[in-house]
Amino acid sequence: MSKTVTIVGIGPGEQGFVTPEVSAAIARATDAVGYIPYIERLPARPDLVCHPSDNRVELDRARHALDLAAAGGDVVVVSSGDPSVFAMSAAVFEAMETPSAAWADVNITVLPGITAMLAASAAIGAPLGHDFCCINLSDNLKPWDIIERRLRLAAQGDFAMAFYNPRSTSRPHGFEKTLQVLKEECGDNRLVIFARNVSRPDQTIRVVPLQETTPDMADMRTVVIVGSSKTKTVQHGEQKFVYTPRYYEVDV
Amino acid sequence: MSKTVTIVGIGPGEQGFVTPEVSAAIARATDAVGYIPYIERLPARPDLVCHPSDNRVELDRARHALDLAAAGGDVVVVSSGDPSVFAMSAAVFEAMETPSAAWADVNITVLPGITAMLAASAAIGAPLGHDFCCINLSDNLKPWDIIERRLRLAAQGDFAMAFYNPRSTSRPHGFEKTLQVLKEECGDNRLVIFARNVSRPDQTIRVVPLQETTPDMADMRTVVIVGSSKTKTVQHGEQKFVYTPRYYEVDV
Repeated sequence: MSKTVTIVGIGPGEQGFVTPEVSAAIARATDAVGYIPYIERLPARPDLVCHPSDNRVELDRARHALDLAAAGGDVVVVSSGDPSVFAMSAAVFEAMETPSAAWADVNITVLPGITAMLAASAAIGAPLGHDFCCINLSDNLKPWDIIERRLRLAAQGDFAMAFYNPRSTSRPHGFEKTLQVLKEECGDNRLVIFARNVSRPDQTIRVVPLQETTPDMADMRTVVIVGSSKTKTVQHGEQKFVYTPRYYEVDV
Repeated sequence: MSKTVTIVGIGPGEQGFVTPEVSAAIARATDAVGYIPYIERLPARPDLVCHPSDNRVELDRARHALDLAAAGGDVVVVSSGDPSVFAMSAAVFEAMETPSAAWADVNITVLPGITAMLAASAAIGAPLGHDFCCINLSDNLKPWDIIERRLRLAAQGDFAMAFYNPRSTSRPHGFEKTLQVLKEECGDNRLVIFARNVSRPDQTIRVVPLQETTPDMADMRTVVIVGSSKTKTVQHGEQKFVYTPRYYEVDV
């Protein structure tokens, strides 16, 4: 009778980015709960019961995990990347706001993971090497106005920015508006990085000046990083790296 | 003749948070370059030459790593946490702005790590479960004015915030000013998390309402997380979790 829920992040794709703590939690679990494509990434094991579920049912999934644990399970709740960053942790704690009495002695642990923006930053150099903001561009759970307000304030603070969920087929216009806001707030030569399927065999990374960006450069498998005004490239043979310097000199 | 520099993040302390990719890079390295306490965390190996250096010599250290690689070494540059987040990656790319001819055929790779703010977020729940900013509070390499401007804009955007390097003996007043700015910009009941020595055996985590915070609650071993206006606690038996909801409802 384990009665545990362990909320784990399995990183963006590369198996070598899954931490030993997370691998150990998955190896001892009786049940795995999560969005279908993340469950599919787990190493198959006959005595692991998988409970894949569709997108946008995070709260039901969280309750299901807590119920399985209350019945004696050792349950992993699986997110890609890190479970804090626009993933399952917050949904589990939200479920606990209206707890079932059966959950009282369930032990809950969260284990961090490599989040997509840091894998993308590493893959191209160090564009997140200085202060940055991390923004979910989906307006499914928050009004567009708050997204736009945050984009403008982040640009005015000259933060670098990382965007999750930039564009989906059901939300084709948000990223178009995002690029428009950035073009209004930032200088022309701001560097934008489109990192798709980061750390996977089919990873692609494009570095595009802001004025040449178009909405179709991003989809749901893309993490987008926008540099600060100080972000620059450095050429090394055939390779071009992008980094944001550690120091910040104010232009006079 | 390897001629490689691999810039790795060894996470905040817990050995189980070091990714297999990073462990493999360290295991095959001929040389390890880094700040003394991070080099001390590496598994000892007779054929690994360690080059520990003091704090604040990042650029010299980066050049040294590139020189060692140019001479045929397989060099790991070691940062705690993630190498992008206020760590060695940016210093290596900065060094490459004035390259030595010998570095031309050195192969450079960055491997991400678990950064302290995400380990801290996991340890207390999911306070970074929604949009957030990540700010280095040290004014060694940037003017205080830009820090204060970013704090105010982040607060006005109702971002959660994570602070690195909040306070040191040589900079005792910056964090005092930070708390003052936050008290001016945020409501009284904003939750502040002080996570010290996160993921280590002597980890301590305090959750304090903003109005009760004092500068001495942080030091250089502390990562500080400030919630957004929506961040809340949820009690589970004796345990108190802190999380920021996935949804954002605008107050009317």
